[in-house]
Amino acid sequence: MMKSGQLSVTTKLHMELIDISSKVQEQVTESDIVEGVCILFNPHTTAGLTINEGADPDVRTDIIKGLREFVPIEYPFKHMEGNSPSHIMASLMGASLTILISDGRLQLGTWQALYFCEFDGPRNRTIQYRITT
Amino acid sequence: MMKSGQLSVTTKLHMELIDISSKVQEQVTESDIVEGVCILFNPHTTAGLTINEGADPDVRTDIIKGLREFVPIEYPFKHMEGNSPSHIMASLMGASLTILISDGRLQLGTWQALYFCEFDGPRNRTIQYRITT
Amino acid sequence: MMKSGQLSVTTKLHMELIDISSKVQEQVTESDIVEGVCILFNPHTTAGLTINEGADPDVRTDIIKGLREFVPIEYPFKHMEGNSPSHIMASLMGASLTILISDGRLQLGTWQALYFCEFDGPRNRTIQYRITT
Repeated sequence: MMKSGQLSVTTKLHMELIDISSKVQEQVTESDIVEGVCILFNPHTTAGLTINEGADPDVRTDIIKGLREFVPIEYPFKHMEGNSPSHIMASLMGASLTILISDGRLQLGTWQALYFCEFDGPRNRTIQYRITT
Repeated sequence: MMKSGQLSVTTKLHMELIDISSKVQEQVTESDIVEGVCILFNPHTTAGLTINEGADPDVRTDIIKGLREFVPIEYPFKHMEGNSPSHIMASLMGASLTILISDGRLQLGTWQALYFCEFDGPRNRTIQYRITT
Repeated sequence: MMKSGQLSVTTKLHMELIDISSKVQEQVTESDIVEGVCILFNPHTTAGLTINEGADPDVRTDIIKGLREFVPIEYPFKHMEGNSPSHIMASLMGASLTILISDGRLQLGTWQALYFCEFDGPRNRTIQYRITT
């Protein structure tokens, strides 16, 4: 069994983490796959995917704050578009994630949420997924 | 063929890298899978998974030192628990890893070891695995 | 269906990002796999894999520059070989990547390229791949 497709995410800020856990779980539920894996892939060069705390919304804003503190925003990069820090953050977070599925549920930890990381928004973005047994 | 389950790790320090290579290889051996993949997933929000040098133990302490140097430990984050740097380090290392299996062995490079990264210990932690052909 | 093997990469600089997109696509094409996944694994401890912009070559040099700015190059690390910053960069970029395949093509975004990250070259390096349905 296999289900693949794309999810849409509309971001509203220049940099933000958007919780996509329930959107991804919906696809897992629709797939009728009980035991398997869910692969997520971000096709954008100034965005990424990460997993972190979902309970306190301050954690997601603190992650952005932390990245903005140590990635050198003011450094004289060569890339003419001026968004090299956004590209660096994208590589730091990563483009692909693999999450296990059991009992038809993404096996995230108690405090975990799946985040789409926007580093050069606001934009309309997509995320690829593939759910298999 | 498929084998999945959880490994337990007990960490002893606030931040440390623990070599889990032989624990994971044991599961690969028990699975009787000769050619395939091993997916590892960390379900914690202040921990991560990484692969790095296993020969010199100084490398794993240097990775912690390096992260503590550039992730802003003293920054006024909002998350009330005060462990935002630990959450940031978790996202920098990542939550999932996929390692290839050939001849019944994890295909790690000569100098590589698999590490569980503790960023807010000491704690009892778990790691999910799924080994498939 | 499955195809696995190794790719060779010869790096020329101490630190650089090398575009391996077409090398990996060649293996996908030879595999005759139309729908599936491509797993890449880097077996080196001072190198990594990342996905970022392929259009402007300044982005890949800016990523190296950015990492060299915030990873503490001059910090008194303990590892005697003196290349701890290279090990840290390896863990920041990550050792494994999973890319989806559709219509016989890696489903990279319009601006994305697959990069091998050399952090302690020049050297002869290898990358493991496994392409499956």
